[in-house]
Amino acid sequence: MDFVAAPTATDNSALSALFRPQSIAIFGASSDPTRVGGRPLANMLKFGFAGAIHPINPKYREIQGLKAFASLTEVPGAIDLAILAIPAASVQQTLEDCAARGVRAAIVFSSGYSEVGGEGEAAQQRLSELARRTGLRILGPNCLGMMNVGAGAICTFGQGPGFAMPPAGGISIVSQSGAFGTFTFIVARDRGLPVNLWASTGNEADIEFADCVDWLCDDPETQVIMGYMEGCRTGAKLVRALQKARAVGKPVVVMKVGRTEIGAAAARSHTSALAGSDAVYDCVFRQYGAHRAATVDEFFDVGYASLSGYRPKGRKLGIITLSGGAGVLMADTAEEVGLEVAPLPEPTQQAMRAIVPYAGVLNPVDITGQIANDRTLYRRFGRLMIAEGGYDAMVGFHSVGGLDPTGGANILDSWTALREEFPEIPIFLSLKATPELARNLEAIRVPVFEEPTRMVRAVAALCRFGESAAAAETESVAAATAMPALPTGTLSESAASALLSAAGIPMVAHEIAGSAEAAVAAAVRFGYPVALKIVSPDIAHKSDIGGVRLDLATPEAVADAYAAILNNARTREPKARIAGVLVAPMVRGGVEAVVGVHEDPTFGPIVMVGLGGVLVEVLKDVAFRMAPFGEAEALRMIGELRGRALLEGVRGRPRADVPALARALARLSVLAAQLAGRVTSIEINPLLVRAEGQGVLGLDALVIGKPAAS
Amino acid sequence: MDFVAAPTATDNSALSALFRPQSIAIFGASSDPTRVGGRPLANMLKFGFAGAIHPINPKYREIQGLKAFASLTEVPGAIDLAILAIPAASVQQTLEDCAARGVRAAIVFSSGYSEVGGEGEAAQQRLSELARRTGLRILGPNCLGMMNVGAGAICTFGQGPGFAMPPAGGISIVSQSGAFGTFTFIVARDRGLPVNLWASTGNEADIEFADCVDWLCDDPETQVIMGYMEGCRTGAKLVRALQKARAVGKPVVVMKVGRTEIGAAAARSHTSALAGSDAVYDCVFRQYGAHRAATVDEFFDVGYASLSGYRPKGRKLGIITLSGGAGVLMADTAEEVGLEVAPLPEPTQQAMRAIVPYAGVLNPVDITGQIANDRTLYRRFGRLMIAEGGYDAMVGFHSVGGLDPTGGANILDSWTALREEFPEIPIFLSLKATPELARNLEAIRVPVFEEPTRMVRAVAALCRFGESAAAAETESVAAATAMPALPTGTLSESAASALLSAAGIPMVAHEIAGSAEAAVAAAVRFGYPVALKIVSPDIAHKSDIGGVRLDLATPEAVADAYAAILNNARTREPKARIAGVLVAPMVRGGVEAVVGVHEDPTFGPIVMVGLGGVLVEVLKDVAFRMAPFGEAEALRMIGELRGRALLEGVRGRPRADVPALARALARLSVLAAQLAGRVTSIEINPLLVRAEGQGVLGLDALVIGKPAAS
Repeated sequence: MDFVAAPTATDNSALSALFRPQSIAIFGASSDPTRVGGRPLANMLKFGFAGAIHPINPKYREIQGLKAFASLTEVPGAIDLAILAIPAASVQQTLEDCAARGVRAAIVFSSGYSEVGGEGEAAQQRLSELARRTGLRILGPNCLGMMNVGAGAICTFGQGPGFAMPPAGGISIVSQSGAFGTFTFIVARDRGLPVNLWASTGNEADIEFADCVDWLCDDPETQVIMGYMEGCRTGAKLVRALQKARAVGKPVVVMKVGRTEIGAAAARSHTSALAGSDAVYDCVFRQYGAHRAATVDEFFDVGYASLSGYRPKGRKLGIITLSGGAGVLMADTAEEVGLEVAPLPEPTQQAMRAIVPYAGVLNPVDITGQIANDRTLYRRFGRLMIAEGGYDAMVGFHSVGGLDPTGGANILDSWTALREEFPEIPIFLSLKATPELARNLEAIRVPVFEEPTRMVRAVAALCRFGESAAAAETESVAAATAMPALPTGTLSESAASALLSAAGIPMVAHEIAGSAEAAVAAAVRFGYPVALKIVSPDIAHKSDIGGVRLDLATPEAVADAYAAILNNARTREPKARIAGVLVAPMVRGGVEAVVGVHEDPTFGPIVMVGLGGVLVEVLKDVAFRMAPFGEAEALRMIGELRGRALLEGVRGRPRADVPALARALARLSVLAAQLAGRVTSIEINPLLVRAEGQGVLGLDALVIGKPAAS
Repeated sequence: MDFVAAPTATDNSALSALFRPQSIAIFGASSDPTRVGGRPLANMLKFGFAGAIHPINPKYREIQGLKAFASLTEVPGAIDLAILAIPAASVQQTLEDCAARGVRAAIVFSSGYSEVGGEGEAAQQRLSELARRTGLRILGPNCLGMMNVGAGAICTFGQGPGFAMPPAGGISIVSQSGAFGTFTFIVARDRGLPVNLWASTGNEADIEFADCVDWLCDDPETQVIMGYMEGCRTGAKLVRALQKARAVGKPVVVMKVGRTEIGAAAARSHTSALAGSDAVYDCVFRQYGAHRAATVDEFFDVGYASLSGYRPKGRKLGIITLSGGAGVLMADTAEEVGLEVAPLPEPTQQAMRAIVPYAGVLNPVDITGQIANDRTLYRRFGRLMIAEGGYDAMVGFHSVGGLDPTGGANILDSWTALREEFPEIPIFLSLKATPELARNLEAIRVPVFEEPTRMVRAVAALCRFGESAAAAETESVAAATAMPALPTGTLSESAASALLSAAGIPMVAHEIAGSAEAAVAAAVRFGYPVALKIVSPDIAHKSDIGGVRLDLATPEAVADAYAAILNNARTREPKARIAGVLVAPMVRGGVEAVVGVHEDPTFGPIVMVGLGGVLVEVLKDVAFRMAPFGEAEALRMIGELRGRALLEGVRGRPRADVPALARALARLSVLAAQLAGRVTSIEINPLLVRAEGQGVLGLDALVIGKPAAS
């Protein structure tokens, strides 16, 4: 599935030297632990880095208690990683020296590169070229470096480690923003989340965000990959990294800013290096199974929940609570995020009523305040729900029960018993808990949240990770048909129709007439009524010049229309080359869809679908996917349309042939991938989606090829 | 604006006895501080209630160190409040005794009432009747009581006070759920929010949620009213309380569960006492200026921000940050919640670039990591933004800067200086801060958040409070026209049209023809083409029986249609009374809207608007308002439609006459309020919204009156 020119595979061994260094040289090392050149050293000494550290500074013999070297040549042994805390002017030569000496990777803190434009831009180009030429991998410039928490390799001058460290563990964080990355690191620490690796990619002269994600897929210490993004340099790298993460079962949680127009404008003014429309990023994350978080809370809620390793097998959610109100609140949220709050079987409901007559027993199950009188209720109700409800995941709400010792002990005992009886069921709890109770619940694999709605949203995210992985395993993309010949420039409607037909997309029959008589003869063959349209490579918007006549029901009407169309074209577009007039049968019935392809600068050909008219024009109700994809993915794409109910039959109309629409989209995506780089856009408008079993039919198509030179 | 039968004004002096009691009698008082009858007493002793407490229990002479009484008659002096911690069986008589003795208010903890159905329901009815008859106000039954934090009047047996108290202060919380109310109380405490009053209303035999809100409007200690609701007994009371809160400038923040279908189903199974559709609640909160929160986080974010007293005068938001990424994230959120991230004037941008050449200067302003080298940057950039940007509110993001002493001191100094220079501008900060720094910032009226997106959302909520209050001051509802005569049952189209025309809503002209010749004559008067429709009080859905013919362009077509319509009606509805055939001109052009009125069981007549076709039928894109309202409110209502762009002219169509649509909605609302209780529904479909200046025109109307008996 190499639909965009595939970059060379990331050299993961050099990235291992960066992220798991055994020996580190620090250029510009300082004795002052508050200075940029002093902080990484101080941090590594403080947090117990076990490898070799070689401070390089010609002015000193010893720095922070370590032997200092005057230059790289004096340093003994192999060096995995160089940290450059030196002015930009010296960076290029220092990196050349590092490459010559066999250093595998370097972190460049220095600023003054693409972020300042002009000469900085050129200097950054030279860094990129050096990395390509020598194989030395570079993190930065203008970055805050990286931290390997477990190894104590705290190669940053940022404020992240300034206060304390989080526990070492399964979450790795990659950030394109230093300041925001530091913020997320501290938030993670304050939430007690276990962190493995943290990296700030800065200007990405060499190592991109996607390279880091790729490496983390192979990193045994990383269970969950979290990233803050502003944009992506190489779309294909990001897609490959996301696919790899999905294949190895590691959830990817991203915050990508610039969701709105004003946000995107702010992002452009913030950094000029990033391309691609936000809607396309959104579709890429969804298509390849990453979770896109809109807030810092959501980012870490999903990251934390992912650490549990749960991937619910379906969307049936069981809700147990001692507050009816909290149950309703969680049910509301579940509905909003697409989880099923399926009712319990009637016999189970009866069994529950036999225990507490006025309990809520439908799902949400509300055991009521009776828990204060009978501590066994959680266990008994929970057992009934899990054993008989067939739920894919359970969430519970304990209010403030976790704050008092008796209540807390009972909560832990109850769920421990249920965990032992049902070792596999994903269980999540929302409650006010002491830190100790929270740790004990986590130890039995029960993630703990305070806010019940955030818990339910996190569960839904885990469901999507599971669904995406399962879908990827069964996804099959149709084989491409023979490579079509493609004229340059705008194709005639006839040529466009032929191209799409050959790709397997049903298009309405047509003939090209060179005279009024020929047009009438064609109309007789198709049967009345018919449509007539001007055919010219120079006229893209036929209606605008009076080049279209619809619903022609008699020979006279056809002949008149023929004359009028030609006359309009000659008058309004005197220089246009006229190839004739197209005659096609009028086709009615079904739902009008619009499907198309456009080329995204970052991710290549993107397929779009919308349901016609007001939904597309007024509400911009469209869905996107990167090409190519299969029919199952196309069905998910259609399912994202807000107006999808239109396909299910409204006002007594029949259900539309959704599988045929999905098939057409998948085939269009294969064609788009084949034509990548050669076509600017494809649009079929309308594509009529007829009643179930009757397929789809494209009525009009516009294909704009790239100019001849490309 | 008493559009629903107005209940008697709440007796606020009796509620003052409940919420600010000077003397309390406790029935069922216990020496055991862990028991229901022991907890309130223990709490009041612990938290220093200064009034008189009289335990009543014939078994003891002394309870928890206080003199105990055998019965109410022995208690000396006046009693404000009785707490009943006794079995349900004794409650009624005890309350009768209290009323006879002149006790003003009572809290009934006891359960076994409407929540158990049957006899419990009847017992609760007797409590309601007692309250009405005697004037004794009752909180509960089946409630957790109330807490006046400042006074130490901790009249609850719930777990809320079991751990510690929040500081006393301006937030009051009313909850229809005991367990969820307790949860919110503890969350508030853990966030350090200052709480004045907390009340659990239980089954609401007498005192309703809305009564509590009403009282809190008058309570000088309460600045912000927060409530958890599942439903409302008396719609008019709630509306009046919300209007009062808005008038006195106290923000109301509510969580109302049951937003979704599944949630509403869960709510119904949880409590049967609640009516009204959730969409109507949503419109009521919006119409009367309350903020509806969807999550516990949002609930307290808005409550906390409200304490600042800020009401931004407009929606222009200035964003200052040291992380470009966080700036983009906040700009994204601002756009989503309708705040304007307006750019700075060009000279200001230049002035900023002169300070830091590579700063982001558009808005968001990004002072970059240079803050580490120059501590004056926040102050200098902040001053430029506030003085020259014309922003209605400022938000800043300081990342983790508040955790280290130097950075924290600079943050506090910078904003203190800006506060002194600009005493009025609302300022909010997102940062990781020490508790001390957060307190110091709050002391200079700078609310502190950790999560930047939650901060921006809270600012938007404050804007809406201000806008709603301003709108209320200028809102004027049109005077009703003379009270129309209203036949019972379904009105004929002709009668419906006359009713709506008389109310000031333009309806298409029509004549009733009794013969084909008369129909043709009418068509000639209107001009062709025309529409013909059957007129019968017994046929509501005219199209379904072939009773409608459109677009009739010739005398022959009119005559044929007349015959066909009569024939269809006689064949398909042989028993229907036929009053003739309606002739009306065909009117084209403009946007089709659907407007209507239905009667909500809780809130009375509700006016609806949607834009026709797929938007209403497939996307359910409609907006609601309680009747009556003015044109400004109608404009806001129209602005809530997702498809509103359709009115602004798409595909080269002219802008539609939105003011005329608003006028028609306002007039319809006045008519609906006049007819409250007498009409089941009104629908004008379509109401054609023509080009600007050309008004609206109703083409068809259906008015269903209540059956004759009502």
